[in-house]
Amino acid sequence: MHLSQATWPEIGARLAAGHTGIVLPIGSHEQHGPTGLIGTDALCPQLIAAEAEKRGDLLVGPTFHIGMAQHHMGFPGSMTLRPSTMIATIVDWTASLVRAGFTRLYWLNGHGGNVATIQAAFAETYAAYSLRGEPAPFAHKLVNWWQLPGIEKLCLAEFPVGHGSHGTASEVAVTYWGWPERAVLGQQVLDPKIAPEGPIRDAADYRARFPDGRIGSDPTQATPEAGGRIVSASADALVSDAAAFFAEASPGLAG
Amino acid sequence: MHLSQATWPEIGARLAAGHTGIVLPIGSHEQHGPTGLIGTDALCPQLIAAEAEKRGDLLVGPTFHIGMAQHHMGFPGSMTLRPSTMIATIVDWTASLVRAGFTRLYWLNGHGGNVATIQAAFAETYAAYSLRGEPAPFAHKLVNWWQLPGIEKLCLAEFPVGHGSHGTASEVAVTYWGWPERAVLGQQVLDPKIAPEGPIRDAADYRARFPDGRIGSDPTQATPEAGGRIVSASADALVSDAAAFFAEASPGLAG
Amino acid sequence: MHLSQATWPEIGARLAAGHTGIVLPIGSHEQHGPTGLIGTDALCPQLIAAEAEKRGDLLVGPTFHIGMAQHHMGFPGSMTLRPSTMIATIVDWTASLVRAGFTRLYWLNGHGGNVATIQAAFAETYAAYSLRGEPAPFAHKLVNWWQLPGIEKLCLAEFPVGHGSHGTASEVAVTYWGWPERAVLGQQVLDPKIAPEGPIRDAADYRARFPDGRIGSDPTQATPEAGGRIVSASADALVSDAAAFFAEASPGLAG
Amino acid sequence: MHLSQATWPEIGARLAAGHTGIVLPIGSHEQHGPTGLIGTDALCPQLIAAEAEKRGDLLVGPTFHIGMAQHHMGFPGSMTLRPSTMIATIVDWTASLVRAGFTRLYWLNGHGGNVATIQAAFAETYAAYSLRGEPAPFAHKLVNWWQLPGIEKLCLAEFPVGHGSHGTASEVAVTYWGWPERAVLGQQVLDPKIAPEGPIRDAADYRARFPDGRIGSDPTQATPEAGGRIVSASADALVSDAAAFFAEASPGLAG
Amino acid sequence: MHLSQATWPEIGARLAAGHTGIVLPIGSHEQHGPTGLIGTDALCPQLIAAEAEKRGDLLVGPTFHIGMAQHHMGFPGSMTLRPSTMIATIVDWTASLVRAGFTRLYWLNGHGGNVATIQAAFAETYAAYSLRGEPAPFAHKLVNWWQLPGIEKLCLAEFPVGHGSHGTASEVAVTYWGWPERAVLGQQVLDPKIAPEGPIRDAADYRARFPDGRIGSDPTQATPEAGGRIVSASADALVSDAAAFFAEASPGLAG
Amino acid sequence: MHLSQATWPEIGARLAAGHTGIVLPIGSHEQHGPTGLIGTDALCPQLIAAEAEKRGDLLVGPTFHIGMAQHHMGFPGSMTLRPSTMIATIVDWTASLVRAGFTRLYWLNGHGGNVATIQAAFAETYAAYSLRGEPAPFAHKLVNWWQLPGIEKLCLAEFPVGHGSHGTASEVAVTYWGWPERAVLGQQVLDPKIAPEGPIRDAADYRARFPDGRIGSDPTQATPEAGGRIVSASADALVSDAAAFFAEASPGLAG
Repeated sequence: MHLSQATWPEIGARLAAGHTGIVLPIGSHEQHGPTGLIGTDALCPQLIAAEAEKRGDLLVGPTFHIGMAQHHMGFPGSMTLRPSTMIATIVDWTASLVRAGFTRLYWLNGHGGNVATIQAAFAETYAAYSLRGEPAPFAHKLVNWWQLPGIEKLCLAEFPVGHGSHGTASEVAVTYWGWPERAVLGQQVLDPKIAPEGPIRDAADYRARFPDGRIGSDPTQATPEAGGRIVSASADALVSDAAAFFAEASPGLAG
Repeated sequence: MHLSQATWPEIGARLAAGHTGIVLPIGSHEQHGPTGLIGTDALCPQLIAAEAEKRGDLLVGPTFHIGMAQHHMGFPGSMTLRPSTMIATIVDWTASLVRAGFTRLYWLNGHGGNVATIQAAFAETYAAYSLRGEPAPFAHKLVNWWQLPGIEKLCLAEFPVGHGSHGTASEVAVTYWGWPERAVLGQQVLDPKIAPEGPIRDAADYRARFPDGRIGSDPTQATPEAGGRIVSASADALVSDAAAFFAEASPGLAG
Repeated sequence: MHLSQATWPEIGARLAAGHTGIVLPIGSHEQHGPTGLIGTDALCPQLIAAEAEKRGDLLVGPTFHIGMAQHHMGFPGSMTLRPSTMIATIVDWTASLVRAGFTRLYWLNGHGGNVATIQAAFAETYAAYSLRGEPAPFAHKLVNWWQLPGIEKLCLAEFPVGHGSHGTASEVAVTYWGWPERAVLGQQVLDPKIAPEGPIRDAADYRARFPDGRIGSDPTQATPEAGGRIVSASADALVSDAAAFFAEASPGLAG
Repeated sequence: MHLSQATWPEIGARLAAGHTGIVLPIGSHEQHGPTGLIGTDALCPQLIAAEAEKRGDLLVGPTFHIGMAQHHMGFPGSMTLRPSTMIATIVDWTASLVRAGFTRLYWLNGHGGNVATIQAAFAETYAAYSLRGEPAPFAHKLVNWWQLPGIEKLCLAEFPVGHGSHGTASEVAVTYWGWPERAVLGQQVLDPKIAPEGPIRDAADYRARFPDGRIGSDPTQATPEAGGRIVSASADALVSDAAAFFAEASPGLAG
Repeated sequence: MHLSQATWPEIGARLAAGHTGIVLPIGSHEQHGPTGLIGTDALCPQLIAAEAEKRGDLLVGPTFHIGMAQHHMGFPGSMTLRPSTMIATIVDWTASLVRAGFTRLYWLNGHGGNVATIQAAFAETYAAYSLRGEPAPFAHKLVNWWQLPGIEKLCLAEFPVGHGSHGTASEVAVTYWGWPERAVLGQQVLDPKIAPEGPIRDAADYRARFPDGRIGSDPTQATPEAGGRIVSASADALVSDAAAFFAEASPGLAG
Repeated sequence: MHLSQATWPEIGARLAAGHTGIVLPIGSHEQHGPTGLIGTDALCPQLIAAEAEKRGDLLVGPTFHIGMAQHHMGFPGSMTLRPSTMIATIVDWTASLVRAGFTRLYWLNGHGGNVATIQAAFAETYAAYSLRGEPAPFAHKLVNWWQLPGIEKLCLAEFPVGHGSHGTASEVAVTYWGWPERAVLGQQVLDPKIAPEGPIRDAADYRARFPDGRIGSDPTQATPEAGGRIVSASADALVSDAAAFFAEASPGLAG
């Protein structure tokens, strides 16, 4: 079930039946090199969660689709929340879901640049309880989709050379599977074939280091077919990983 | 073109060619009565904008899909940003797009409860410039989709009785057009047939006044077909309304 | 009774007797064209509330006199709160009054530019309760003084041509009634006689569109006498409108 | 000239003539014991500034009338801003006035409990410049009205016994001068005649220490006549003190 | 006992035994003239508290070592928190300590520029309780170390001429006692021997008024020996002053 | 040189000579099990940086000693900043140092729980520039001391069994080296000898999972001697790692 297409009585019934976990795709809108879509980091976890929803009894929530991407602001079309804004937003999402009775929030992330801010936001939500001396009635879990069990290995098997860390062959392949009409983008010749690597700082520094936006990757290898294989394996992994989290006993929670 | 499925060079080229306007659907995730989808207010402007994008040369951005819905928090599945958080988020979206060179942000809204906060957010973005004594290099426009030229009349013609103001027959019809498999929800018998009306305050007050969530509406009249007619007319209206805004001369702007 | 000139035991006695409503004038300090006073939008609701207090058993609070007026910052003497600051301030006013036992806050507004931010602030005060799942022990009501029952009609009857929407003949008349020595300002010849109209954006844009500050108005028609008639009718309307709000049963409140 | 009753061209002319200073009364609305008005701390500097405006060429701005009074919240009718809100508000007042060209802001304070927060707010306004390495184009001055040259001595001469520090005989006298019909409040017999003293902490602690709200004072001595003498002397002192500040050369400013 | 070198069971035992007070040195890192250390204002209360801890049964907490020093930002090595940040930080320190059971926080301050912000922060911590109508379960006390009983007199006796108010002979002496190898700094010849005085505003204004950073002082008089005498007397005064505060009955607290 | 014991002319000279890097120890004050000091995570990087300062030409700044430790709040003596507060504080530290001319901030961290918030704070400092389209005139680097080149290997060699991840044998050893009189704490018998492992959530959950505070560690193995070896190797590693960062060419910076 997807929250967007559900009614409130349906969600209420699901919670009343004890299904108090939800999967929340989280990503970003930012440049992904000349061959990658701006929405890549939001679209990947969204596609995987949608596929998982077909295969298991999962409730999937709206995709948190604008993330922390300040370093990409030198490339048009990129969007960012400041970390402080993103924390406030995750605080509100959490409060809303906890108010309804959700106790387990599984965040499936598609953007490495989000990780620190998401974890800081988790701490912000917990801190309100921790400082009052009350147990938090919920638990968060953050998983990058490429770190779902078995997926990193699969991605490197698909693209053993030039996988990279931004605008990767894997994530681009996943989006080509979702929007095959855009796979033609991968026919460009990129120079250099494999993009450089380096530290990530502000946007001007980033654009100077990584002129076309990619880091360490050759995304021209991406195909819809490879993307489909990654989505399929990731969806299976998500079904079981989320189920384990939702079933886990927690000292500070009832379930 | 949709920003999510575009590349940064594509967006850069568009901006370089002087197309510096963007349409941003904005809505909410909140209960819409027993027959309406939680995502209704985000899905309606998103569907309309997607249809408009097919008919005109528009750039459509990501849907701002979680809005200000504190009064709906008594119904499970509803999500809200506090107004202060929503303002900070719109500030960041605006800053990101303006950084890239966008000068006209057309917000197509699907949630009446968003209007005040969106307008306050616009003022927050302008205030930074106004207090420094600099012209703001951008302009916002906010339009509720049902107030696009000609649409309110069409909606009332489709549903002359029991249109209502929350969980309306029109918006439910639009979502049934988008997700026809959900149109079966409309076969429920609601009691009362037409929901009550009243002021909107906090969530507890809301749930006491409007027990099943609807305000003033009989959404069981909704059909995918009516929804399709509304989407089609709205998309046409959006194409011309956005074009007029993007072409408008502004004393404080170049274009 | 006016809160400023009351003692705490007087307020305590009033609350103990069940009079838990208060009228709060709210306005702005901003340019009102060459013939209008900077304080107009604060002074109008303040004058009306003061007159109402003489005629009915009302408690009137301090005037919230600096509002959201970012668009007027191109004209000297204008003052503004950023929307985020104004929201924080209304949150604190509300918390203070609710702490004492007030349950009904009737805001009589004098500035159209305040409306969105005030409503966003109301939502911010409610959201704290709505997200915790507790009923808010208070209710807000916002009324623009010119929208008190019967007043808009009266204003247009007084000034059928060139009433306008900023620096209006009505509001200027009200202040001339309050400060008749300033009515001489109205003897200026304005060019154009009736000011232009247009959208409201940032301050630079505003000043370019509306060079002397007025929008759509010919305030040289204003007279103290007309102002007195408007104040008198508005005061009567306020007495009954506030009484109705204070007496209204509310599902989420005791009274 | 009072800003509220001025027009923007009048303020513009004044600034163009080099009169870039403004007097801003600042106070609070909070309990002042059984015989004192809730608005006392706002009304005193407002009355003094109004009187000064008659005697000298001063521009007086709106009274910042709700201050930091958290410790008084145990008494009905008291209102407070949290310090963080008050700082944000002073930041916005300052930005507005500086935007217009004011360079000297003279704050005439009526509430001891405001002092720390006001000074913190001044620092907040300066810090933005100091951290950027730019000179601030303005200077603040804070003066408690009872510390205007000669006034403390006068107050103690009027009320040598039981002057106190909250709900003082002096401030109550000033308000009785302003609202002589309220002087009858002073005919109450207070027990004890002179209120106790002690530290100021939170509201519950305050109410336990100071059951009727006064600290160290016997305000039943207050008379309109004494109030008038204090106002008169304070107004004269303000005229010269503000003039000196406005004329003072400042290394970081032009004037 | 110093919190940094204690274990949690040790702190727990101390609290369980009813020792719920803690001494918190608080200062700043900012220029102190050509002969004074940047850390002076943090180091002085830290040294005094450390000495007091040896002489009495005190628990000393970490030094709040970066304070509000915006006016010093024209001199390299100075650091500042904006007042709003400092308030948020003191709020968190307070919440943390109160969560553990501390009820009395004695802040020993070394920087005059901190006072307003610290007091505003105290009010911020109290306001949360005062607005909810709950007694705050803690009390703050702020003492500048030079205002400990008897210390100001001692300092002026040590340095009767040119003591000053920033980069004072006393505080510099205290740091030379702590870091005698740095006493050689005092052999510089300063011009003028005694620094000028004046108001404190933004950083550019400050540097223009006080070119080498000192205000009113001749710190070349400082010696480690004088510093030692000041530390010793201050430590004794702190032991008894803190003990009195920790033992004081408070209406709003249990202890 | 340590900033606290330097004068502003010394810092100015250092910057003028092109030494624009600074090492900032950053840690936390929180429980470290029955044998570990509350200040461990601040003291370790502080001790290492102090030792490095003796061996190389480093400028060391004040220790950021209270970090993000919400999960430890169930143990007395623990202190935390909320992530949002910590971000604001790091923003101010950065602004202060950049204002003076520092361009490279090397943060030597002692607390795993800080990492996400520190990285979010870095992004917050960069975002201001990235959104304006200006290059940030500084770069941050974050290194956990145990991840300095070669140190993790050394720690595991010292403590091959039961090293753990909180209250580790290594960090406890480092503090025993710094405060050998506290090494006696290590003579306790802990049960279990090696603490359990698990996820980190809110404070109540943490205390339920990890009853004495440790995670996965047997810190009774810690000795001052082992600590000394770790400090020595870490100091050497820091000298070279910081030097490399300070010398690194950066596209977005001059140096």
